[in-house]
Formats: sequence, C-alpha cells, structure tokens
Amino acid sequence: MKALIIGAAGMVGKKLTQRILDKDSPLHQLSELVLYDIIDAQKPETSINTKILSGDISKNDQAKVLAAEKPDIIYHLASIVSGEAEENFGKGWQTNAQGTWNLLQELLRITENIDSNYKPKLVFTSSIAVFGAPFPNKIDDEFLCAPQTSYGAQKAITEMLISDYSRKGFIDGISIRLPTICVRPGKPNLAASGFFSGIIREPLNNKEAILPVSDQVRHWHASPRSATHFLTHAGTMDLSQLGTRRSLNMPGVSCTVEEQIDALRQIAGNKVTSKIRHEPNPKIIKIVEGWPRNFDPVRATALGFKSESTFSEIVKVYLDDDFEK
Amino acid sequence: MKALIIGAAGMVGKKLTQRILDKDSPLHQLSELVLYDIIDAQKPETSINTKILSGDISKNDQAKVLAAEKPDIIYHLASIVSGEAEENFGKGWQTNAQGTWNLLQELLRITENIDSNYKPKLVFTSSIAVFGAPFPNKIDDEFLCAPQTSYGAQKAITEMLISDYSRKGFIDGISIRLPTICVRPGKPNLAASGFFSGIIREPLNNKEAILPVSDQVRHWHASPRSATHFLTHAGTMDLSQLGTRRSLNMPGVSCTVEEQIDALRQIAGNKVTSKIRHEPNPKIIKIVEGWPRNFDPVRATALGFKSESTFSEIVKVYLDDDFEK
Repeated sequence: MKALIIGAAGMVGKKLTQRILDKDSPLHQLSELVLYDIIDAQKPETSINTKILSGDISKNDQAKVLAAEKPDIIYHLASIVSGEAEENFGKGWQTNAQGTWNLLQELLRITENIDSNYKPKLVFTSSIAVFGAPFPNKIDDEFLCAPQTSYGAQKAITEMLISDYSRKGFIDGISIRLPTICVRPGKPNLAASGFFSGIIREPLNNKEAILPVSDQVRHWHASPRSATHFLTHAGTMDLSQLGTRRSLNMPGVSCTVEEQIDALRQIAGNKVTSKIRHEPNPKIIKIVEGWPRNFDPVRATALGFKSESTFSEIVKVYLDDDFEK
Repeated sequence: MKALIIGAAGMVGKKLTQRILDKDSPLHQLSELVLYDIIDAQKPETSINTKILSGDISKNDQAKVLAAEKPDIIYHLASIVSGEAEENFGKGWQTNAQGTWNLLQELLRITENIDSNYKPKLVFTSSIAVFGAPFPNKIDDEFLCAPQTSYGAQKAITEMLISDYSRKGFIDGISIRLPTICVRPGKPNLAASGFFSGIIREPLNNKEAILPVSDQVRHWHASPRSATHFLTHAGTMDLSQLGTRRSLNMPGVSCTVEEQIDALRQIAGNKVTSKIRHEPNPKIIKIVEGWPRNFDPVRATALGFKSESTFSEIVKVYLDDDFEK
C-alpha cells in the first residue's frame, strides 16, 4: 500500500508520519510512503520505501505530480493558516480550495484514462472553522456550515467537493473537522488560537505566557496524539459507514481557559501558572468570540473516534509526548 | 445603472428581463442592460440601451468578457441542469462552480486594478438541491447543506464563494434558493422535476400528462411570477440586512401531488384532470425521494419575500401569465 501525506513537514504531518511508520502501525500494509510539503520533510528512519517531494499545491502543475504517484491513500493536511488566508485572499483560495480541487480532477483523470479500478482513499483535515456564529450551546452533527473566515469557507468547499467525488465513487473520502489542537509543541506561532497552547507550554518551560482573552472563554480542544488517532482511524475504517455525509465533527474537550489553567495548576503547581499574564488584546478577543465553544460529536463517537475527556489528560499528553526535560 | 443577466435566454431570465423593462420596473434606475446566455437572448423592445452577448461560462475567457462590462448589478441564473450535471460530471462542475468562481475573481480584479469603488451587487439563483435527505418535517433557515447531487454541491459551493466575497466587501451578494418553479410554460423538458409542471400544464392544454410518482409525494413550489419577484426584491433590497449569512430559503407552497391535482380539478374540472395518467417510474421515484418537502422560510419572509400561499394560486398565475387560449 502506498500512502501520500500532503503537508508532511507540519506538526501533525510529522506525528502522523511517525505513527504510520511505527512497528504497530495502524496502516500495517504500508509499503511506500510519499512525503510532500512546501519544504522538504525530514527523511524518516525506516526500511519502508520513502520519497520526499516538495512543491506548492497552489501551483496548477502540482496536482499532476501528486496524482502521478497513484497513492492508495492520501492524507491531505496542507493549508494556508486562517490568519494568512484572511490577509492574502487570493493565495488562500488558490491554495486551500483550488489546489485540492485540481488534485481531485487529476485523480479522476487517472481513473478515467489509466486505471479504471483506481479509487484512492482521501483523508482531509477540515476544521471547526467551517462553523460561524451564532452558535447553539453545543454544535450537533447537523449544524450548518456558515463560515466567517475565508479559511473556513475554503475548508467547507473542499469538504463538499470530497463528498461529491465520493458519492460518485471516484474517491473514497472523509473530511475530519479537527478541534483546536492543543498543546502544540515548539515555538509560539502567530495564529490567533496560539495562546490556548501557549498558556500551557510556555509556563511548563519556565517562560512567561500572555493570555489575550478572558479566562471565561470556552473552546474545543484535542491533543496532537488525538489528531494522529483521528487520521489513522479515518484511514483504516470502512468509510461506506458514513453514507453520503462525509464530513465529521471530531470529539474533543470543551473547557474554559480558567479550567485549562486549573488543570495546569493541579499538575505543575502555582509557581508554573503564575507565569501566565493576562493582557487583553481586543483584536484576538473579537476573533475568538466567533469561534465554536462546544460540540456533541455523536456520529464520530459512534464510529470509534476518541479524544481526551478532560483538559488534564491533554496536558499529560504534552508532558508524555513533547515536553523536553 | 447597468444590469447584466447571465442566463437571460432561459425561462426565468426572459421573465426577469420583461419585468425589469416594465414601466413600473422595480429597478427604476436601470439605464443599460446586458443579456448573456449560451444562445442569443431575444432583443427586447425597449428604449433602454441593450446589449446581447452569447458565450459559454464554462470557458475560462468568459469571466473577463462579463466583468469588463462593469455591471452595477448581476443576475446569475445560468446553470447546467441537475440531470445533465449528474451525467456529465466535468461539464457540470466547470459550468456551475468554476465558471462563477472565475467571474468572482475577474470582478475582484476590476476592483483591485481599475476602480477601487467598484462593488457590484450579485443575485445568484441557488436551489433547494443544496439540501439532502434525511430531512426534518420542515427545513428551517439553519438546516445544513448536504447535497446529494453534483448540481446541489455546485450551488452550495457557489453560495459559499458569494458569502465570502461579500463578507470581505468585494461584492454585495445574495443567493436565493428557489423552490421548484411551477407551472413552467412551454414544452415538457427532461428534468426529473418536470412532471410537477406537466401534470398541470399539459391537461390544461388538452394533452395527456404522465405522473411518474405517487400522488402522496409532497414538494415545495413557487410560480415563475414569484421567482421574478424574488429576483427583483433581492436586487433592490439592502443586503446588509443579511449579515454574513447570504443564502436564503425562499417562501413557497408545500403540497402533495394529490393537492396539486385537486387544485387543478377545482379550477378546470374533472375532464381536465382525467388527462393525467399514473405511470410509476422507479428512477424518478428514487430521485424525488431525496427532495425536500417543506420549509419554514422565516428569514426570507421577514425580509419581504413573498410567494403564493396555495397551489390554486399557482395554477391561476399560470393561466394569467402563460396560458395561451
């Protein structure tokens, strides 16, 4: 089995690569792996045949390059992030929507012209940004997509394309709507959601963290380890169970920032949480107001997707998987 | 004010053209009219400056031609119909989704490069095909788009593009989700929904009509006159009232086929309705099972969109507007 990871050099892409190359890999039939990103992904240590490719999926020639690999399973994790898609409208649409559409067209061309049995599995990381306020208390599996950002609209459109290509039998696709992934390892990034990870990661590493919103803000989280599980589970399950509704809200933990900080205090003590400084940022406050707070992911749970159930578990996953002592 | 109608040679396009050229036109500032379709639209009798253009919006050069007109208001009614979009996958996507996306990109290019004040109003005819079963008894304004046809997916994606371009202030757009338009004048067409009009129009014209489904099938209808009103109302109202949710379910009449036939009988008598022959067609039965039956269009109604309230009224509109004695 040949797998392609688009966005392999990113945080989730790296963890997914590692996981599917484990000796207890959920993709146990894996025999070839293509790692694609805008920069070269790191070559993993493995006996499995690995190819590193780099390119920009916003360029119209890239879909052909990727489809020519004829992967059996494609993980599509790549995108311009929310803030950049908002700033650079054309680039966001070209990368996050047109790039994927081009890929779908090229995959279909392979099926139509070269191998009529070719029907790749496609696992796409969508986002809870497909939803827009006003929200119910808990967003259920039938809540409408009314995105309030270009990024959210691009994800929602890609979901629709994947559903229609799947309905027609050209691919076997699934879109998984990731919660905010927390605790992100590494350096702080400029994403508006970055502080949700920052207020945990930075104090644990003896650094100060800025909290730009009220501690009463409620949000929806899952760990990087859960994200990897969502992807491998999606990649190995029978997707016909989804019927024609191919987009799934993933499980997660709904909690307030105060509850996040309480969890950190219980695990690491007052001295650590005292590193968090509240410095309200009106711009971030406004963005975060438009974000989902809680979900009732009945379908995904019934299909075997699992996440942490408390924020303490999320902190512990960070300490286990990414914290460098 | 310059208006462009894309799809001007179609049934709704012709009625809209007529209406906005009326002496009591709702678009009373109209001074120039561009009629575009894949065939030449008929040149209307009017003192207003009119241009007839023909072309295929699936071709990538057409967006430039249309945007170069710099219309103040664009009615976009053109599409490959549902059945053809299902048969000819590539053509459907290229025409119904890529063609409109190209147009949006070209309009933005005009704004960015030529006239930074240019912000056209765009009225797009979407469809209740954006929805897919399973349905609630009444579809409310927050029901999710889970289309079960490529046509529905193409409409839903275009809606999202229009919402995002509007949110960014590049255009001022609205997508109106038309009910099945009934009674369509003219000859029977091959659309799966054609019989809803056929069972009224054909008997009134002393011809036999085939009913391919059970008379217990419930569906959602509005007259061509209502469709024209939806379009002119959308074209003259203040769209900022919509906020960021730019797609609206239009009002209509929910009734069963039996109720349709009863309405026809009351107006035209038993001899007319006896022309309807029930001849079940499993293919059409299956398609129609996936169609919406009833709506609760609270937002559109509050914004002043009106339709008939009984199917008898719909039959009478046909007799008034299109029946040739």
